[in-house]
Amino acid sequence: MSTRRQLANAIRALSMDAVQQANSGHPGAPMGMADIAEVLWNDFLVHNPANPQWPNRDRFVLSNGHGSMLIYSLLHLSGYDLSLQALKDFRQLHSGTPGHPEVGDTPGVETTTGPLGQGLANAVGMALAERLLAGQFNRPGHSVVDHRTYCFLGDGCLMEGISHEVCSLAGTLKLGKLIGIYDDNGISIDGKVSGWFTDDTPARFQAYGWHVVANVDGHDAEAVRAALEEARAVTDRPSLICTKTTIGFGAPNACGTHGVHGAPLGAEEIQATREFLGWDHAPFQIPHAIYEGWDARASGAAAEAEWRERLAAYRTAHPELAADLERRMAGELPAHFAEHAEAFIKQAQASAKDDASRKHSQAVLNGFGPHLPELVGGSADLTGSNNTWWDSCRMVTADEADANYVSYGVREFGMTAITNGMALHGGLVPYAGTFLVFSDYARNAVRMAALMGVRSILVYTHDSIGLGEDGPTHQPIEQLPSLRLIPNLDVWRPCDLTETAVAWQAAIERTDGPSAMALSRQKLPHQPRQDDQVSDIRRGGYVLREPANEPAAIVMASGSEVGLAVEAAEALEAKGHAVRVVSMPCLERFMAQPADYRESVLPASVRSRVAVEAAAPDSWRGLVSSDAGLVGLSGFGASAPGDTVYEWMGLTAAAVVTAVESQLAG
Amino acid sequence: MSTRRQLANAIRALSMDAVQQANSGHPGAPMGMADIAEVLWNDFLVHNPANPQWPNRDRFVLSNGHGSMLIYSLLHLSGYDLSLQALKDFRQLHSGTPGHPEVGDTPGVETTTGPLGQGLANAVGMALAERLLAGQFNRPGHSVVDHRTYCFLGDGCLMEGISHEVCSLAGTLKLGKLIGIYDDNGISIDGKVSGWFTDDTPARFQAYGWHVVANVDGHDAEAVRAALEEARAVTDRPSLICTKTTIGFGAPNACGTHGVHGAPLGAEEIQATREFLGWDHAPFQIPHAIYEGWDARASGAAAEAEWRERLAAYRTAHPELAADLERRMAGELPAHFAEHAEAFIKQAQASAKDDASRKHSQAVLNGFGPHLPELVGGSADLTGSNNTWWDSCRMVTADEADANYVSYGVREFGMTAITNGMALHGGLVPYAGTFLVFSDYARNAVRMAALMGVRSILVYTHDSIGLGEDGPTHQPIEQLPSLRLIPNLDVWRPCDLTETAVAWQAAIERTDGPSAMALSRQKLPHQPRQDDQVSDIRRGGYVLREPANEPAAIVMASGSEVGLAVEAAEALEAKGHAVRVVSMPCLERFMAQPADYRESVLPASVRSRVAVEAAAPDSWRGLVSSDAGLVGLSGFGASAPGDTVYEWMGLTAAAVVTAVESQLAG
Repeated sequence: MSTRRQLANAIRALSMDAVQQANSGHPGAPMGMADIAEVLWNDFLVHNPANPQWPNRDRFVLSNGHGSMLIYSLLHLSGYDLSLQALKDFRQLHSGTPGHPEVGDTPGVETTTGPLGQGLANAVGMALAERLLAGQFNRPGHSVVDHRTYCFLGDGCLMEGISHEVCSLAGTLKLGKLIGIYDDNGISIDGKVSGWFTDDTPARFQAYGWHVVANVDGHDAEAVRAALEEARAVTDRPSLICTKTTIGFGAPNACGTHGVHGAPLGAEEIQATREFLGWDHAPFQIPHAIYEGWDARASGAAAEAEWRERLAAYRTAHPELAADLERRMAGELPAHFAEHAEAFIKQAQASAKDDASRKHSQAVLNGFGPHLPELVGGSADLTGSNNTWWDSCRMVTADEADANYVSYGVREFGMTAITNGMALHGGLVPYAGTFLVFSDYARNAVRMAALMGVRSILVYTHDSIGLGEDGPTHQPIEQLPSLRLIPNLDVWRPCDLTETAVAWQAAIERTDGPSAMALSRQKLPHQPRQDDQVSDIRRGGYVLREPANEPAAIVMASGSEVGLAVEAAEALEAKGHAVRVVSMPCLERFMAQPADYRESVLPASVRSRVAVEAAAPDSWRGLVSSDAGLVGLSGFGASAPGDTVYEWMGLTAAAVVTAVESQLAG
Repeated sequence: MSTRRQLANAIRALSMDAVQQANSGHPGAPMGMADIAEVLWNDFLVHNPANPQWPNRDRFVLSNGHGSMLIYSLLHLSGYDLSLQALKDFRQLHSGTPGHPEVGDTPGVETTTGPLGQGLANAVGMALAERLLAGQFNRPGHSVVDHRTYCFLGDGCLMEGISHEVCSLAGTLKLGKLIGIYDDNGISIDGKVSGWFTDDTPARFQAYGWHVVANVDGHDAEAVRAALEEARAVTDRPSLICTKTTIGFGAPNACGTHGVHGAPLGAEEIQATREFLGWDHAPFQIPHAIYEGWDARASGAAAEAEWRERLAAYRTAHPELAADLERRMAGELPAHFAEHAEAFIKQAQASAKDDASRKHSQAVLNGFGPHLPELVGGSADLTGSNNTWWDSCRMVTADEADANYVSYGVREFGMTAITNGMALHGGLVPYAGTFLVFSDYARNAVRMAALMGVRSILVYTHDSIGLGEDGPTHQPIEQLPSLRLIPNLDVWRPCDLTETAVAWQAAIERTDGPSAMALSRQKLPHQPRQDDQVSDIRRGGYVLREPANEPAAIVMASGSEVGLAVEAAEALEAKGHAVRVVSMPCLERFMAQPADYRESVLPASVRSRVAVEAAAPDSWRGLVSSDAGLVGLSGFGASAPGDTVYEWMGLTAAAVVTAVESQLAG
């Protein structure tokens, strides 16, 4: 039988050899954490290599994602569908072993990591999802949602501010099934962290209300095992295990230095490491006994089978709950959701109600929410302003898990990455609110949602200078066009209740990526529509107002400027100009329509075109004939009542009229 | 003589009345912190209302910037040039009293705050700037740089991740002249913070190595005074004073609730508050005795005069140092800086050296640095990768202040906001490095630099898919166009050493805003130029390659794609097409050129235009004739060697050739 150290050395060998072969990568962390990973995976982690989607598996997150060869080694050795050839092709195009772990590319990778701190935040989201699902579904004698979330993290994760946001919240919410394992190796890229990172990390996490196991020797398997047992025994608080390790353990000359962090060891040091570790196998050769020591297929199949028995008993006792759980974990919406949504939309159009679109959004939540139990909301301490709370919201607290709303505190980045973690976990459709301008604070988590293709729904209110007095720090200018630049993100900016409901439906029904809503603080006028116009909203852009005569010009707008565009069109009509108004609540959706539909909305023959939006106008440049057709904002806003700011910045119906006239004349 | 409480009540009255008059704003924090502010400003703060720019003044930062009426009240009462009328015009257009404090709008406001946590980060930057300047300038017997930095902060600031980043670093660097005062009022917008924020904040800050004065009654002036004295006595660590306060103190019914945080009290509660406080003066009426109790003009003038005497003695003893200090605090560059820069640029062009532009950037630092002692650099734990360290760098540590380089740790957002704080302090030209993709983490601090118009220089390396194996989490796609959307930010993307040097010169000579540099990981070819072409680089765009015949087409590019554009032009020339290549290192600068210059570079008559850049192509849409002229990236990258990723994503000279040919044919 192989020793624990020999099993761990398989990770070290695979990691150093793959990095060497790629001539690129990070051997330090995998070699340093190999002993810890060996204990966790072989003694504790509940998973089934044959079914990486088993809903009740433990989640394992490698937040220090640069150490990707650690997880690839673990997945390969324990029996996942990740071949030795894939390891040999580390960091090559479409190899299944990208430079950083990417969810969807590799079976068993739970989330994409690399941008530091966010994996930890995703893990908090997964643990929170487990907690909420357990609260919603488990019944006395039936524990069908019951797994742990383990997260490896490094110094970099702990230096990042997001680690504070999410660990503070995890402490407050007492997420007792979350276990973090900190790779305290004292080294980051600039060298010894003592020059820039001297936190007493155990004390810091105790201040968050965590249970901390300090000073564990990360190369002593028994010590790691004892620490994990202690952490697992404490279930009323999250646990952090602080393990002292040597980065690049096994490389006799390079270990313990930043040189081993992010570069191949080189042939000579690799040879020395083989000798030091007593690993006399050729690169990518793993002895049969080592594979045997790692193989988790039998235990994994047994674990899943045991759970399926429990699920069967649950199904007998609680058939409706079981069906709902299975539906939700499969990522399917309720059978009648679309029907309910469409009825709501029809009624919205008929109600003809003027209001702020943030309030419309709340009305939609009240309309859709009862038909969508997987909806879980929250806000970064702006619940009343974001209108993210609806009538059946129940607040998550340390003591209450049968809930569907999180007051995240002033933690935009953490909130968004936690939302991504919940979406990744499955069983929930999470949404999260803040002011549009503070999407900046969370920007990389929005990008990660888009890169991973997860259904995070981002509710951004106070979406323009129209918010008024709070001034330029709070008035978005570049945020709208800037969010639209993120690939695979749908940005919706609805103009009234009907469009807001369609936006929510689209965001909820989307299964391959996130959606953002830009919603107004101020009241907006309802727009009249025929049925076919209502149907076309989901296309992202459509003809909202058609003149009696063939249109000579087109005015396009989104959200709060749609009313202004209509006003301008009416003024122009009074002057004898036939003007079409196009409402464009989602440019991404519109641009994805077939060419003939786009041509029907924006005929190439109509070159007099103006776009108006309370934002930097760059998003619209491809749809107008020249920059003279752009009515937008070119600098920062100012503190004053919203109407005054609109006037001062020249965003008026009169400006649209002038722009259209100059196009018609030109 | 007025009592301390009466003096504080003047703040309460002004704040509630101004918010009521504006029908918008945040009375809770000013009313809650009034007693603390009264003690700090009347007993400790060293400042001169007649000269808000006095270099050696204490810095006061209101990180919970929504409480802006607190600082406006303080400035007005203590004798700054801020009239009662300005207070009456709170939150009106161009009143000098915007909704959140904005540097430049109001004398005595040191930084723009509102986006939570960033004021605290700016304060850390100011304290660090003081520390570095003291280290560089003070001499035995001559302490000419010697002031404190005080920062008020609320729960929101402490929940934000950036507070962790900057306070952890401030602890490591032992910034002993930094004093934070935490308004622990237990309330944030969603209600009682106990539901989402249960940190043991004193323990948290002790874990960072701070000195903490816990459990201070923020309404007991003597307790506050004692706490401030204790904090000031500890100079080997930063101090945090945790004050328990009642939000909206004085409003008998509304105080202690989130209702008082961000809305006017209403006429009735205001009346009740007047009675409760015994403040029987009409709105905006301040009795003479109260003004007298606050007036800091005499003490301020005396303090500045005393310092000017010290400065005179220093000037006698160290004339060159004194001249340099005065020059630097006046924000002037060394007399011969431009000359040195231009000589370097000339030599750069002659040297014809191929290299990665990040390495060119380091060469420029080595060329410019010796002539620019105010240069202070750093990196978010990527020093070797960002090439931000140059030969005369001296690392800042807890013990070493005569230094000019900060290893910020993995703290991009904190680093950037600290950089803003250093720029605001004056006397330094700070630059800060990370990977371009992680500008996302710091995005709102970049925006704040632009909004405030401060000279922060942001060094962003690994600027494209060209970084290769690290994969899509690290490969910028939308970051370049997205940064270009931020008003008042210059984004430079140089193609070789010459352009890199011009970019640095422009960033350093700019006095009204920040600049970002996008620099390649990979080697780029040097481009030949005539003198007039070298001169035109600073215009942001210029003709780099002119064909023998009248150009039939133009290819535009920036940075790493300039070489590719030249390659394409040569291939097209071989096919008989005359193609101009325009290098566009800074679109903002180019768009700011006179129309005739722009026309000379991009003649309207040449409609066959192609722009190529390894990024989402949106920045270029205004400069090409149609989207067919855009050769860029439309989705996320992939993990593979850089050349492979370029090829896979279709960013090749062949693609440029095809695009030009189709334009010429069309």
